[in-house]
Amino acid sequence: MKVIILKENLNNGLNIVSRVAGKNLTLPILNNILLTTEGNFLSISSTDLELGIKYWSLGKIERQGGLTVPAKILSSFVNLLPEEKIALEVKSQVLYIDCGNNKTQIKGLDAQEYPIIPKIEDDKPIELNTLPFCEGIAQVVDFTAPNQTRPELSGIYLRFQRDRALLVATDSFRLAEKTLYFEQKIDREESFILPQKAARELVNIFSERKGKLKLYFSPNQILFEYPMSETTHPQIQVVSRLIEGDYPDYQSIIPQKHDVQLSLSKNEFLNQVKAASIFSGKSNEVKIKVNIKKQEIEMLSQSPELGENRSVLAGKVTDTSGKVKEIETTFNYRFLVDGLLNIKSSKVLFELNGEEGPAVLRPEGDTNYLYVVMPIKAT
Amino acid sequence: MKVIILKENLNNGLNIVSRVAGKNLTLPILNNILLTTEGNFLSISSTDLELGIKYWSLGKIERQGGLTVPAKILSSFVNLLPEEKIALEVKSQVLYIDCGNNKTQIKGLDAQEYPIIPKIEDDKPIELNTLPFCEGIAQVVDFTAPNQTRPELSGIYLRFQRDRALLVATDSFRLAEKTLYFEQKIDREESFILPQKAARELVNIFSERKGKLKLYFSPNQILFEYPMSETTHPQIQVVSRLIEGDYPDYQSIIPQKHDVQLSLSKNEFLNQVKAASIFSGKSNEVKIKVNIKKQEIEMLSQSPELGENRSVLAGKVTDTSGKVKEIETTFNYRFLVDGLLNIKSSKVLFELNGEEGPAVLRPEGDTNYLYVVMPIKAT
Repeated sequence: MKVIILKENLNNGLNIVSRVAGKNLTLPILNNILLTTEGNFLSISSTDLELGIKYWSLGKIERQGGLTVPAKILSSFVNLLPEEKIALEVKSQVLYIDCGNNKTQIKGLDAQEYPIIPKIEDDKPIELNTLPFCEGIAQVVDFTAPNQTRPELSGIYLRFQRDRALLVATDSFRLAEKTLYFEQKIDREESFILPQKAARELVNIFSERKGKLKLYFSPNQILFEYPMSETTHPQIQVVSRLIEGDYPDYQSIIPQKHDVQLSLSKNEFLNQVKAASIFSGKSNEVKIKVNIKKQEIEMLSQSPELGENRSVLAGKVTDTSGKVKEIETTFNYRFLVDGLLNIKSSKVLFELNGEEGPAVLRPEGDTNYLYVVMPIKAT
Repeated sequence: MKVIILKENLNNGLNIVSRVAGKNLTLPILNNILLTTEGNFLSISSTDLELGIKYWSLGKIERQGGLTVPAKILSSFVNLLPEEKIALEVKSQVLYIDCGNNKTQIKGLDAQEYPIIPKIEDDKPIELNTLPFCEGIAQVVDFTAPNQTRPELSGIYLRFQRDRALLVATDSFRLAEKTLYFEQKIDREESFILPQKAARELVNIFSERKGKLKLYFSPNQILFEYPMSETTHPQIQVVSRLIEGDYPDYQSIIPQKHDVQLSLSKNEFLNQVKAASIFSGKSNEVKIKVNIKKQEIEMLSQSPELGENRSVLAGKVTDTSGKVKEIETTFNYRFLVDGLLNIKSSKVLFELNGEEGPAVLRPEGDTNYLYVVMPIKAT
C-alpha cells in the first residue's frame, strides 16, 4: 500500500473510527484499526465485533494494499502532525509515515487477520435527516437499563411506521419516548433494539454532520450510511448488531390521564430540585406537595444530620380529575434532574397521578417528547 | 446572628473559602466553614490547620453572632439560589436561610469550637502586584518534590531582596526559577518555603483579582492580605504555615555555561516532543542529537513493540564552547513538555551541556524565567 493523503482527511477518519477500538486484552487485534485501499479511496475501519465503523477518504493511491495498526498510536500521532500531505506506505507489515520533517514507523499486523465487518444487502433503505435523528436519540439514550438481567431493556427501541419514528428507552424507573415525523411517508415498517453504545456513537458521529442517513436492515444487524458530499459513495458506515428479544409493551406504562397538571418554568424547577437534593440524604428523596384548591406547589427535602429545605414553586395548577384535593408524592431527585435536562423548552408540564402513580414530564407546547417517572413508594 | 446579604457577595466568599474545608474524618469540624459578624461585616473563614482563608463581605448586620456549618452543603446550596437578598439567621445552632421562595435550615456547631486562624503582627508588610506574582507562582508551582523525604523541597522557595523576588521550585530532576522585579525597592530581606497547596490557592484566588497583595511575616507563618476595593479593610486573608528547614543552594545547579544553544519555535518543538513521546515506551525517553557543524537537530524515539519516530527540528544552532562537534542526549519527554508549557514566548532557547550535564530551557528574549532539566543517564 502507498497513499498520499491530506492530514485533515486522515485525521477526520481516525477520530471517528478509532473510538471503537478499545483495550481488548483477550483479542489484541481489536485495539487496531484497518487501513485498506479501495480503488481511489483509502478506507479506515474498526470493530469491537458488535459495532463496526468504516470511513472512506479520497487520496492519491499509488499502490493498493492494507495493514492493521494500533488505533490509539496512529490517531494520537497523526493528530500532532502539521497540516500537510502525509505519505503512508506499507512494507513488510510496517506502516511508514512521512510528513514534513517527521518520519515514523508503526509496527502492524497483516490486514487479513482483522475481523470482517459484515455487509448488509437491502434495496429499500429508509432515509432520515441526521440532525433531528441525533437530537432524538440523545434525548432517550441515557435511560436504558444498566444491567443484563433484561437484555432487551439495555438498548434503545426504534420503531419506524408510515410517517413517524418512535425512539424509546426505559430502565423501569423512568421511560423516555421521542417521536420524529417524516415529511415523506415510508412504505415499510421496521422495529428493532439498538445497543446503547451504538446509539451513543451515532450521536457522536452525526450530530454535527447535516445530511441524510440511510438505514439498511437485516434480521440481526443494521447499517447506517452517510454519503460523501456531492456523491453517492459512502463516507461513513456504522454497522451494529441488534439486541434479540421483544421490547415490552411500553405504551401501557404511559398514563393516559392524570390528577393534576403543573405548568412550571423549567430552569427554576431544575434549580429548586437541585437545591432540595442537597438535603435529600442518601435516599435521594424530594417530596412534592400540591394543594389544588389553593393552587400551591411546594417542594421539601430533609435529612436528620444536615437540615432541611422547603421551597414554593411558582407555576399554574390545573385540576384535571376534579376528584383530588391534595397530592403528596416523593421522587428520586436524580430522575427529575435527568428528565428536565432533556427537555429543550423553557416551560415544562408535570403531570401527577396520586401518591404512587407514574408522573409525566413534557415540554410545554410540544407533544413529541415525554418522560415518565415513577415516584418512590412510601415505606 | 442575623444578617441580610446579597447572594453574589455570599457566593463569592464561599467559593474562595470553602476550597480549604475538606473531607477530614478525624476532625469533622474541619469540613465546616465559620460564619461570624464583625461590626458591619460578615466574615467567612476556613482552615485545614496549615492553611487558613478568611473573606469579609459587607452586609446588613441585624444581630451579631456566628456559627460553623458544613462548607460543601452551604456553598453548593447558596450557588443554586436566585440572585436576590439572602437572610441568614442563627437560632440554637441552626442556620436559617431565607431567599425568595426558599426556606432552608442547616444544622451547625458552636462557633467557639472552630479552630482559630492565627493573627500575624508585622508593621512593615511587603507589597506586591497580584497578577505578575500569581503568574510567576504558576510557572514554578508544579515542580516541587512530591514526597516527604526532603520536606523542604515539597514547597516553593520565595526570596525577597531589594528590587526583586525569586520564586523557585525543584524536585531534583528539574528546577524552575522565576524572577520578579519591583518598581520600588523594598528595605527588608525575607526568604521562606511556602507549601505547594498554599501556593496553588494563591493562584486560584488572586490570578484574576488585579490589585496589591500585602505580605506580613512571622517566623513560622505568612499572611497574604488583599483589601476591599477603595478601603484599607481587608477583603481576603490567606494565612499559611511555612515549611521548616533550609532550602538547598539551588543556584549551584543552574549551569553557568553550555556547549550549544538551540533557538527553536516553542509550539513546533512541543508538538515534536509529543509526537516522539508516542513511541518512547515506558521509559519516556526521547533522544536529541545535534550536529553542530552541519547545524542539524534531530529528535528520535523508539519502542521495540510499537515502532519509531524521527524528526528534524528547524532552528538555529549556536556553538558556544567551540569544543564539541556533536551532542546526543536523552530526556524524559514529560519534563520537556512541562517546561515548554510554562514558557510564554513563541521562541525558546534550549542550552545543552554534553550527554549528561543539566540542560536549560528559557523564553527567548526574557531572562526572568529558566527551567533546568537533567538528562536521563545512559545505562
